[in-house]
Amino acid sequence: MIRIAVIGLGYWGPNLVRNFMDAEGATVAACCDLDPRRLERLCRRFPTIRAETSFDAVLADQAVDAVAIATPVGTHYELAKRALLAGKHVLVEKPLTARVDHAEELIELADKDGRVLMVDHVFVHHPAVAKVKEIVDSGRLGRLWFIDSVRINLGLFQSDVNVVWDLAPHDLSIVDHLVGRLPRSVSAFGAAHVNPDIEDVAYLNLDYGDGLVANFHVNWLSPVKVRSLILGGSEQSLIYNDLDNSEKIKVYNRGVEIGADLESRRKVLVNYRSGDVWSPNLPNEGALARVAADFVASIRGGRRPLTDGQAGWRVVRILDAAQRSIQAAGWRVGLSN
Amino acid sequence: MIRIAVIGLGYWGPNLVRNFMDAEGATVAACCDLDPRRLERLCRRFPTIRAETSFDAVLADQAVDAVAIATPVGTHYELAKRALLAGKHVLVEKPLTARVDHAEELIELADKDGRVLMVDHVFVHHPAVAKVKEIVDSGRLGRLWFIDSVRINLGLFQSDVNVVWDLAPHDLSIVDHLVGRLPRSVSAFGAAHVNPDIEDVAYLNLDYGDGLVANFHVNWLSPVKVRSLILGGSEQSLIYNDLDNSEKIKVYNRGVEIGADLESRRKVLVNYRSGDVWSPNLPNEGALARVAADFVASIRGGRRPLTDGQAGWRVVRILDAAQRSIQAAGWRVGLSN
Amino acid sequence: MIRIAVIGLGYWGPNLVRNFMDAEGATVAACCDLDPRRLERLCRRFPTIRAETSFDAVLADQAVDAVAIATPVGTHYELAKRALLAGKHVLVEKPLTARVDHAEELIELADKDGRVLMVDHVFVHHPAVAKVKEIVDSGRLGRLWFIDSVRINLGLFQSDVNVVWDLAPHDLSIVDHLVGRLPRSVSAFGAAHVNPDIEDVAYLNLDYGDGLVANFHVNWLSPVKVRSLILGGSEQSLIYNDLDNSEKIKVYNRGVEIGADLESRRKVLVNYRSGDVWSPNLPNEGALARVAADFVASIRGGRRPLTDGQAGWRVVRILDAAQRSIQAAGWRVGLSN
Amino acid sequence: MIRIAVIGLGYWGPNLVRNFMDAEGATVAACCDLDPRRLERLCRRFPTIRAETSFDAVLADQAVDAVAIATPVGTHYELAKRALLAGKHVLVEKPLTARVDHAEELIELADKDGRVLMVDHVFVHHPAVAKVKEIVDSGRLGRLWFIDSVRINLGLFQSDVNVVWDLAPHDLSIVDHLVGRLPRSVSAFGAAHVNPDIEDVAYLNLDYGDGLVANFHVNWLSPVKVRSLILGGSEQSLIYNDLDNSEKIKVYNRGVEIGADLESRRKVLVNYRSGDVWSPNLPNEGALARVAADFVASIRGGRRPLTDGQAGWRVVRILDAAQRSIQAAGWRVGLSN
Repeated sequence: MIRIAVIGLGYWGPNLVRNFMDAEGATVAACCDLDPRRLERLCRRFPTIRAETSFDAVLADQAVDAVAIATPVGTHYELAKRALLAGKHVLVEKPLTARVDHAEELIELADKDGRVLMVDHVFVHHPAVAKVKEIVDSGRLGRLWFIDSVRINLGLFQSDVNVVWDLAPHDLSIVDHLVGRLPRSVSAFGAAHVNPDIEDVAYLNLDYGDGLVANFHVNWLSPVKVRSLILGGSEQSLIYNDLDNSEKIKVYNRGVEIGADLESRRKVLVNYRSGDVWSPNLPNEGALARVAADFVASIRGGRRPLTDGQAGWRVVRILDAAQRSIQAAGWRVGLSN
Repeated sequence: MIRIAVIGLGYWGPNLVRNFMDAEGATVAACCDLDPRRLERLCRRFPTIRAETSFDAVLADQAVDAVAIATPVGTHYELAKRALLAGKHVLVEKPLTARVDHAEELIELADKDGRVLMVDHVFVHHPAVAKVKEIVDSGRLGRLWFIDSVRINLGLFQSDVNVVWDLAPHDLSIVDHLVGRLPRSVSAFGAAHVNPDIEDVAYLNLDYGDGLVANFHVNWLSPVKVRSLILGGSEQSLIYNDLDNSEKIKVYNRGVEIGADLESRRKVLVNYRSGDVWSPNLPNEGALARVAADFVASIRGGRRPLTDGQAGWRVVRILDAAQRSIQAAGWRVGLSN
Repeated sequence: MIRIAVIGLGYWGPNLVRNFMDAEGATVAACCDLDPRRLERLCRRFPTIRAETSFDAVLADQAVDAVAIATPVGTHYELAKRALLAGKHVLVEKPLTARVDHAEELIELADKDGRVLMVDHVFVHHPAVAKVKEIVDSGRLGRLWFIDSVRINLGLFQSDVNVVWDLAPHDLSIVDHLVGRLPRSVSAFGAAHVNPDIEDVAYLNLDYGDGLVANFHVNWLSPVKVRSLILGGSEQSLIYNDLDNSEKIKVYNRGVEIGADLESRRKVLVNYRSGDVWSPNLPNEGALARVAADFVASIRGGRRPLTDGQAGWRVVRILDAAQRSIQAAGWRVGLSN
Repeated sequence: MIRIAVIGLGYWGPNLVRNFMDAEGATVAACCDLDPRRLERLCRRFPTIRAETSFDAVLADQAVDAVAIATPVGTHYELAKRALLAGKHVLVEKPLTARVDHAEELIELADKDGRVLMVDHVFVHHPAVAKVKEIVDSGRLGRLWFIDSVRINLGLFQSDVNVVWDLAPHDLSIVDHLVGRLPRSVSAFGAAHVNPDIEDVAYLNLDYGDGLVANFHVNWLSPVKVRSLILGGSEQSLIYNDLDNSEKIKVYNRGVEIGADLESRRKVLVNYRSGDVWSPNLPNEGALARVAADFVASIRGGRRPLTDGQAGWRVVRILDAAQRSIQAAGWRVGLSN
């Protein structure tokens, strides 16, 4: 039985508690938050969980095998580092850290001591994203030409991060999972309205250098919620609309027919192919339950989780480059691999 | 009776013919195209219209008061200039010209001789856009914070222009009409896939310098058609979805409530206001019929049309800046007013 | 060249004119309406068409091979009969006649003289309905269990017929085409609000006697337009949404898995199968153009059109039974074949 | 503190437990089910709740003030009667009973002893239905002309009831709440496919005798889920789409303009008014939490709940009439008030 401590009981922490309580082979031994009322509210529901306001006390407890950190981004590095040094396995909320070098340090620490370091890129564990990955890997779409991601809504403002660090990790982790490599450069543009220091609308543009471009729109000020991802391929295209309850994924057998040689491609009088639409069925499983299961299985099997420290680091690198580009009014920032 | 000659019978020309034939106080006297089969097909439907393959013959005809030019962009300047020099009033398809200085020259020519120069920014004449303009001008939305425009589809490739020059004029003309001024700078990013010389996916970012940012996504490779415009305001927000037949415009009485002073705006713990949605009724009128009517009325009344040469010039300036930015990998291009 | 006269230039007649003008091997020789302004308006567009206010004059014209009748329902029988007696081929707007015996008399007349009698069940010629027919006939859906049809909107009130005779012919002709036989009984319920003598909301229920039931909702008072048809089958199901521009037809590979024998069917603990959704691509062809082409080809080939007099008669029989059921407050009316 | 026992831990019972645990002034003292595994599973989550397999033991417990019955319909009467006789307040799942006389007996019993008898018409407590009720009562819609309700999906088959008794209680209770009186007659038609004894598709038609008709489509075999209610009024109309997360209710300011006197109403050349659409904002509250709160408040205050025994009885009367009509192939069954 893996005994887990959940750190931080704000918005996401209680979800982690519930999912680890339900996970096979695991239990939540302790919870930790600075606010006693949050602890009390949780323990009323789960009387077997020990409440702690001291993180040190959690780390000192030899019966705790692992910690799941759901605190503000700025504290991830410090808490994760102390947990790793105390010999615990660590799951960290996205984004992994606020700085690239911090992510690197955590990876090194975990590797040295053979601990599991996992980042909670929860969407990567979503059955819909797994299906999109399967379709992309099957080659059905052909070469990926463009990715367009929109994640906008009138959302929960954060005091410590801007809309890029708040919303984009979801989409960047999905695209990182699908594409499997870092972009060559990142350009980003953001604007701040409600709080003059914190961007609430932003656009990111990632150039992968081989024809693939990915664009991301993240926005806290939209009147409607949108969560969509378009993958445009040379053969077929796919749309993943996370808010569509019945047809989240649609594959469009509609494309531009072009000859293989450059000469015929130059002839712009292309033929249009128009085809069918196919929407695959998806299993009805919770993504966070799969995160919990993967974390537990990785600890028990001594193996890497699907969203390991490296995945967390790649996303932090893109976020960091985007942030620098925003501060330079869209100046394109290169990413050497 | 204003007698009009329609030049170019490709995709759009026949629509101009139909609408000028139906317009009060006007008629189509002649049509001109290099392809005799197009002329023949049109004249079967409209036997009273004279067919011409020679543009010079059209210009020499003293009975022709005005020409409507629906030829490829690259020819707009030359044809419009000759028409103005021949003393004709001129309506030009969007975009007005392919170069900024050409647009300026046409405006000057028209002004000098008191001729009407109109650009067919057809969406500006759409009842839905007129309603959006009315809502924006009423102040109901508060200050405009962001504009997000998406116009994507598996479209008709053009051999002479890229996706920016093909699709963006629609959205740029709408936003120009709503905002009424040039942005301070433009950044754009494009990618070419089908034809390596012609961008088929592009993103434009316009910074208006006072908190307002506008982003445009234009795309020929999308598997689905999208035509949407979000106006995010400090008080309310609006979505114009041109493909929604029953509720094209929705006004969202949902916003972020923020205090007026800077201090309280810094406190990011904002309250959310959540309100009603309102979708105004729209008259069922064709935009192109209104273009035709405005052109005819401007000629008769000796007044400026709604989408005059200046409006055409502003859009060309943005297109030109976007093109330069694309070639410089997104380098932000300033626009002095 | 088949020479056609179009009778009645109200809402639908001008559409017939346009489509017969464009049809291969046919032309519109004459138009007939009691209202000279309608004739004048049409002839301005089509100066080669002769205008007539006298139906007799049209029939007397030996150069006219066929007439297309687009007048109020109550006049169909009289006009079609006179045209057949004058030796013309006849296309009649739906519904074919207002009385069952009238339909039978027209069929007999046409058969005796070898004239084509066609009813303009326009939706049967729609590419989407042709695709639905193909899917049903392929057996993919299994046995048809239920059909649910909704055709509602704030529509054009008719002075001569109620909502059943106005809207239901569309859906009845589609279902007749798909199912290919008359129902065993019809029950209908209607309510009149705006005009106390004319039903503006109605429901029809058709029992086919072998497990298949079909229900139809027709309504002039709805605030929104709906045009949907659900076909529930023992294996798969299909939805045809005529207002969905991109995915009119969806086939749902989701069904109830049941054992073959009665005993296992009695066990209500059924397993659910959940599968993919498939939306076939449809050609972009006009249904009325296909009506015109089929009428012309039937005349030239001496063959029966797809929607012949018999099809028109079957729909009239159901309408007639529905009307009697409405007057008897829903009393179920049997239809012997 | 009101101490409640929840009887039946199938699909709905655990939801009742959760909501009564969270309700102010109440707690769940005991749970009862014949299946010990269900009890065990629940008690793992809520260790303070006593598990019982004997209903008698629950009734004998003087500390239990009230029981909430979530067992199959066929058992409602017996269990509720015994609970009332044991002096408990009673909440019963919908429909209240399987027979009209049983409902009457329960009402009498509860009245005699001053116990609260409530039926869990959960949708009546939904904030959206409360808003619809408010709009109807405001007179904004004018006179109600028609109600069209659709509740279809590939649902959970029940072994004890057909689709009418399973799904229609939701819609009948909503309409009963809005209209506030019994219809004059009911006609229904059902068809059985999966299990030859149990209807899986049905249509109900209620005639209120003053121009108002209400039609209900309930279906277990549909490939898609639909939950919609149209209220057509003489002034305005309303659509309540329960599956629309952002705009559940839309009020359409579009109607038929008709003169007030009969003569002008006979003139079918009506004018159409076309107006705006308005979608009111809704509070984000759970309906079942409001059921729990209303039950608790009714017990404490000695008052009638919103959905009392009478409301339950009215719905059972309609269900009973519909069932008899189905068995008589749609024969219209009168309901004397």
